[in-house]
Amino acid sequence: MPSNQLPHVVIVGGGFAGLAAARALRNAAVHVTLIDRSNHYLFQPLLYQVATANLAPGDIAAPIRHLLRKQRNVTVAMAEVTGVDVTNRRVLVDYMGRRDTPFEYDYLILATGASHSYFGHDEFAQFAPGMKTLADAESVRAKVLKAFETAEIEDDPSNHRDLLTFVLVGAGPTGVEMAGALAELRRFTLKSDFRRIDPLKARIILAEAGPRILANYPEKLSRKAQARLESLGVEVRIGQPVKAIDEARVVIGDETIPSRTVIWTAGVTPSPAGKWLNAPTDKAGRVRTQPDCSVPGHPDVFVVGDTASLDQDGKPLPGLVQVAMQQGHYVGKVIDNRETGRTAPPPFRYFDKGNMAVIGRGFAILDSPFAKMSGLPAWLAWAFIHILYLPAIGNQLRVSVQAMWSYFTRQRSSQLIVEPRGKQMLVSRSQLSAER
Amino acid sequence: MPSNQLPHVVIVGGGFAGLAAARALRNAAVHVTLIDRSNHYLFQPLLYQVATANLAPGDIAAPIRHLLRKQRNVTVAMAEVTGVDVTNRRVLVDYMGRRDTPFEYDYLILATGASHSYFGHDEFAQFAPGMKTLADAESVRAKVLKAFETAEIEDDPSNHRDLLTFVLVGAGPTGVEMAGALAELRRFTLKSDFRRIDPLKARIILAEAGPRILANYPEKLSRKAQARLESLGVEVRIGQPVKAIDEARVVIGDETIPSRTVIWTAGVTPSPAGKWLNAPTDKAGRVRTQPDCSVPGHPDVFVVGDTASLDQDGKPLPGLVQVAMQQGHYVGKVIDNRETGRTAPPPFRYFDKGNMAVIGRGFAILDSPFAKMSGLPAWLAWAFIHILYLPAIGNQLRVSVQAMWSYFTRQRSSQLIVEPRGKQMLVSRSQLSAER
Repeated sequence: MPSNQLPHVVIVGGGFAGLAAARALRNAAVHVTLIDRSNHYLFQPLLYQVATANLAPGDIAAPIRHLLRKQRNVTVAMAEVTGVDVTNRRVLVDYMGRRDTPFEYDYLILATGASHSYFGHDEFAQFAPGMKTLADAESVRAKVLKAFETAEIEDDPSNHRDLLTFVLVGAGPTGVEMAGALAELRRFTLKSDFRRIDPLKARIILAEAGPRILANYPEKLSRKAQARLESLGVEVRIGQPVKAIDEARVVIGDETIPSRTVIWTAGVTPSPAGKWLNAPTDKAGRVRTQPDCSVPGHPDVFVVGDTASLDQDGKPLPGLVQVAMQQGHYVGKVIDNRETGRTAPPPFRYFDKGNMAVIGRGFAILDSPFAKMSGLPAWLAWAFIHILYLPAIGNQLRVSVQAMWSYFTRQRSSQLIVEPRGKQMLVSRSQLSAER
Repeated sequence: MPSNQLPHVVIVGGGFAGLAAARALRNAAVHVTLIDRSNHYLFQPLLYQVATANLAPGDIAAPIRHLLRKQRNVTVAMAEVTGVDVTNRRVLVDYMGRRDTPFEYDYLILATGASHSYFGHDEFAQFAPGMKTLADAESVRAKVLKAFETAEIEDDPSNHRDLLTFVLVGAGPTGVEMAGALAELRRFTLKSDFRRIDPLKARIILAEAGPRILANYPEKLSRKAQARLESLGVEVRIGQPVKAIDEARVVIGDETIPSRTVIWTAGVTPSPAGKWLNAPTDKAGRVRTQPDCSVPGHPDVFVVGDTASLDQDGKPLPGLVQVAMQQGHYVGKVIDNRETGRTAPPPFRYFDKGNMAVIGRGFAILDSPFAKMSGLPAWLAWAFIHILYLPAIGNQLRVSVQAMWSYFTRQRSSQLIVEPRGKQMLVSRSQLSAER
């Protein structure tokens, strides 16, 4: 695809890692092609805010080609990658059915991320949607709002309970933040919208198979987060694996809970990059890389972000936004240095700036090498960083200030159920048959 | 559904007419149930702005129950109406599959609007989507943006032409405004986003079977509108019916135009209210009403808006937002008066405040009893009225100022292609087979 004789860098994936790599190459004498199957970059950590109707899709996403429009050495291609031919240095794609000419590369960066995993229980998928894309978040939002709508028109109050029981499976950051946001949706946003039901009576259950919520945080912060959730009325079930899910109930440990709205906020599984490359992976399926993020035996192929596995100080690096961004940036620099004959940078080293989880307005936990804290100060730090950070990824400042404003003022134009008519009917009929 | 002994007014449809009726009853001693199959009120005249990525869905829509949250005598029900039993005064609904108890009414207002019509060519639907709902507009947006995306990765420039030819069928307000917005999308919004294609080379064809565009406007304004479209590079085809559409071409008159993006902006067909009531209709299928908007023989049943047919000064009232709102308001007052024993108001009379169509930034036509004008002054009037008007329908002022700001500054966060993965693949494969 490059129209000149410059070395061609192909980046697959326009998430945190891929975009950081493209940006790091902005002054390099290369041509870059960034391939993604979606047309937009997504600020995934706030996806739960779309699912709970606090933010609109446009608040947390922006077209990739718009973000890179000023970087003239990048071409953006919306296409689905289907494999890599490392021998001939080609990326195989589905050009939306138009063509199948592969992209030839001199350097390849795979930043293909992860999708959610049902841990071998794929039959859960139809009853407990996960959240990785905007479309996922919008369908979770429709499911949540429709639960309230359905309860409002249900004549028999004894049927309200299963309609207004929301179960989140998995208490990592997404599950915990979503539980907090649901509690507030129920308490504030929907407060005066209904006449026949009291949204406050909705139950929110957060189920975690492991011994505590937010397992990646220090135990003390986990405890504080759990106490906060409980003060918001969320029922936290610890050490109880989910054994079954269908359209009317979920089985957690030995307990059967009638619920029509189960959301999957548990594990992730890496992209098939390892299979494409036929490269060694860790047991989760992530590609084991060299200390410079390249693939063993292929110094021109790099794997970064959630689909890569690299140890630091004897421990694998976590699947975090910061790791992905830092690796993407690092690999861009490695390629730039190689092209200009400069010495390679030292091995990749992750610099931990700290992690935060927000639980409702006015409360967050912060875990960083410099400080650990919880409550309002952590939440203010979160709000401040996001106001600074969202525009930095390319949205205009306006968008993020709006988003924050909307978040503070509990504005509701995001509470839309947008579905093709056909689908609405389908949902309706499948629920009907479930009644019998 | 009413929990008290007040007369029960059932309104079907939460559009302009239905919402106006509900609001007109806010101080009446009645209980109101407003039923809509969607959860949101939609400012339909700006739907084309969502389809052309200028505005986001949340800018032109708001949850009905939020708009009515302070009006305590209204219950909002999200359900699909399937018929009316006038003998027993009951509205039959599909309760999202939960229940089928009908709603009993003392007064019934049908404000069920219209959907788009393919004039007996339903086979066009799959190739030429129409625009009546937010989901429609979002799928048109995805189709338009994907045409540019696909052209960008297409290696053979000879295939660019059919990808970058957009055909709008029907030159009423929606077709004309959409053509103007597409011309600007091409010229400004996408200008620097692509590397391999020049969005300016996209063709926009507006096809109209009738003798002129905007047939409801005075001939002079039609001509000015057409001249403006042509100055924006839109090709206007007049008096040429569309004879065939498939995934690769459209036949207009005797000409076959290769195009993969055909949008249906032609006729509308009223809701099945006439069938539900078994009432006399005009030849379009709209219910013929009495001068007080009631149905002959059923003084407690009213039909208003696009699904009603009423003559004024010997001519049928047009299917306009203003007619719908004024009728909805009028019927609310009729019911209120009847309940309080006051004399009935005089027969309904539409007061024409004027109509406007916008063709790109800085140009509109205005046709009112007081003035007819075109160009920038008309456009400024349009912008001013919309800034005043959108908040009046319930969105906070913030939203509409934002929307206008976004429109002026050509902001892009609305340019998102949001589709379930499965659907993306389906589109991709169907296009592939079309290639063979």
